[in-house]
Amino acid sequence: MRVVVINTGTELLLGDVLNSHLRFIAREIFPLGLRVDRQITVPDGNAIANAISESRDAEVVFITGGLGPTTDDLTREIAAELFGLKLEHDPAILRAIQKRAAERGFRLTDRVARQADVPEGATVLPNEHGSAPGLYLPAVAAAKRPHLFLLPGPPRELHPMFLNSVLPILRSVVPPAEAVERRVFRVVGIGESLVEEAVGADLLAIPGLELGYCARPGEVDLRLIGETPVLDRAERIVKEKLGPAIFSSDGGELEQAVVRLLTERKRTLAVAESCTGGYLAHRITNVPGASVVLLGAFVPYSNEAKTAMLGVDPALIESHGAVSKQVVQAMAEGARANAKSDFGLATTGIAGPTGGSEEKPVGTVFIALAARNRPVSVQKRFFPDDRPTFKELTTQAALEMLRRRLLETPKV
Amino acid sequence: MRVVVINTGTELLLGDVLNSHLRFIAREIFPLGLRVDRQITVPDGNAIANAISESRDAEVVFITGGLGPTTDDLTREIAAELFGLKLEHDPAILRAIQKRAAERGFRLTDRVARQADVPEGATVLPNEHGSAPGLYLPAVAAAKRPHLFLLPGPPRELHPMFLNSVLPILRSVVPPAEAVERRVFRVVGIGESLVEEAVGADLLAIPGLELGYCARPGEVDLRLIGETPVLDRAERIVKEKLGPAIFSSDGGELEQAVVRLLTERKRTLAVAESCTGGYLAHRITNVPGASVVLLGAFVPYSNEAKTAMLGVDPALIESHGAVSKQVVQAMAEGARANAKSDFGLATTGIAGPTGGSEEKPVGTVFIALAARNRPVSVQKRFFPDDRPTFKELTTQAALEMLRRRLLETPKV
Repeated sequence: MRVVVINTGTELLLGDVLNSHLRFIAREIFPLGLRVDRQITVPDGNAIANAISESRDAEVVFITGGLGPTTDDLTREIAAELFGLKLEHDPAILRAIQKRAAERGFRLTDRVARQADVPEGATVLPNEHGSAPGLYLPAVAAAKRPHLFLLPGPPRELHPMFLNSVLPILRSVVPPAEAVERRVFRVVGIGESLVEEAVGADLLAIPGLELGYCARPGEVDLRLIGETPVLDRAERIVKEKLGPAIFSSDGGELEQAVVRLLTERKRTLAVAESCTGGYLAHRITNVPGASVVLLGAFVPYSNEAKTAMLGVDPALIESHGAVSKQVVQAMAEGARANAKSDFGLATTGIAGPTGGSEEKPVGTVFIALAARNRPVSVQKRFFPDDRPTFKELTTQAALEMLRRRLLETPKV
Repeated sequence: MRVVVINTGTELLLGDVLNSHLRFIAREIFPLGLRVDRQITVPDGNAIANAISESRDAEVVFITGGLGPTTDDLTREIAAELFGLKLEHDPAILRAIQKRAAERGFRLTDRVARQADVPEGATVLPNEHGSAPGLYLPAVAAAKRPHLFLLPGPPRELHPMFLNSVLPILRSVVPPAEAVERRVFRVVGIGESLVEEAVGADLLAIPGLELGYCARPGEVDLRLIGETPVLDRAERIVKEKLGPAIFSSDGGELEQAVVRLLTERKRTLAVAESCTGGYLAHRITNVPGASVVLLGAFVPYSNEAKTAMLGVDPALIESHGAVSKQVVQAMAEGARANAKSDFGLATTGIAGPTGGSEEKPVGTVFIALAARNRPVSVQKRFFPDDRPTFKELTTQAALEMLRRRLLETPKV
């Protein structure tokens, strides 16, 4: 089945908002054997009608955005007009909107009543996290109408609606999936072309295997698609050649791998981050269950705080500088001692855009891992990138340092 | 001029990677008077040729992705074939790739040599952050060829290339922009329909004003486009009606507004976050210059850490629970006292998916703001959402609580 995603919204084409819908929808429909063939972003207004028209040869069309209460929200009306459907007012929708607003203490304007208009023949998809419901129009071959889903723009509204209402409908209209599977192996610490050098020739020799590479900051994703026996054969090669560099074979993030290893090995962690400013703790605490293994995190942004929070000797900072091997060691030890954890992981560096010197240019970073009864390990790295990339690469390196250590740590 | 963005990459359509190119390109070209009319994502392979073909009536086409060293990288070859151009090997590119690899200690495979192939007549766009250079093919009206930019997929490679090489070329080929401007007012604490109720009627009455609303977690963006006098008139209305709810009129984030206010008022901050797990500190430290005002952050994830790091009385946790008014007050005071800062901002709550109770369901959160010589202020909020949205909404509310206080704080 041919699937098209149409994202509407002038704010997307002006760059005011990042479009995350394609990623979400693509991941959710893959297990049904569906892939997105094409995604189009168009502005609010008539371009929506054109995009729907040119997608009438698809079997499934998802349209996001333009269901809200404001004057630039027109998707409902445009779709109804294009397929010659009357809009009918549904008082139950209006009551649900009013109830939700009352519970949350919102006040409503008269304009929200438009959100209770429903094209004839449409199924209403309830919105748990916002006022505008979604709409589903079943395919009508004679009218060259694909299965059409009108969905809200805000991701926190679209996501639960998709899981609770759209997927059940899709399951009832999509033929049983071919037995094709996707496996993604995520690798950290080696570049894209070295990953291909390690496994490419062997994998290309496997018939029926679809192969893809994707480089991200600090990692490479190797994507394999095919029937199960083909994937099993490919997976053996990948695991043999890349071994411990693979941190995930289930799509999980590096922080999930670290939290899982800490949990399995019953070890605890404390974090001290200067240049990553809370991002390392944020990544770890994004993993549900992190509270069992992460005892605490310190962000001693000033030199004084490095001493007050972590007991770093001011003389060390004075003689070596805050960005130094000596200080990162003391930070990792201080975090571990203070939180009474098994491991202490610390970062200090120069994120930029200012603060660099000849000797320590912007991008210089030290990462340290402290553990009970062992000398502290230190890495010096160099990530001369913008501030977000610097934070991303530094936390990747820190998490990978801990993950490699955990792989050698026996379970207790 | 009609502008089309074509993003290539099966990983985008499979949802393995979030597509951030449209947002970046759209923002960068707006000041030249250019807007993206349409954005299309297509898989690797022949669909790229189709997408280019159907965009031949545009004046400017940006194509991202498919310039890498691996076998699924085909954009260069497809574009050359479509426009009947020979590929010529450029030894200078290969030398630059080899030099970059040597500096960073990378090893190269033979396959990178493909990245030194250049279609005849193309300008090479240097890549500071990766091996594949970009390519620019000037428009040829007779061949129905638009200005064509082939750009790398990884954002950290594309961004500097766009700023340093693409924009100068665009400036030389795009006619001087019409004097149209964009202003975005970002509002926190009130919903989309209330924003429209406050300003919509007055703004719709202004001729030549283009108006848009965009709801995001915890905020609403109001976008105005028009000529300068029109925008000045609209801005007066917006500021009069929305007043202090506007935290940004330059596209800046809420954390930027907070860091700016702290800096202007010479006040310092310490943060103590339990349920937001470092995200509040991460947002603040994303702002260059944050180190002047943020002295430190504590993430006392366990109950013991709340006591050890912040001096929270264990009896308070015992009698009221870690998620309580009493504990969040003690956390805010503890952070402030420990870091010797002017303000202490604290969060504690139940992010979920587990940990809720009848009395305190998942989504319950307390936020406290401590200041010198004042009683601690506390807000109880309820964000029954997924974990990332919970963190987003909680940090929005915390930053807004501090921002409102700072607006009342005199400069020293």
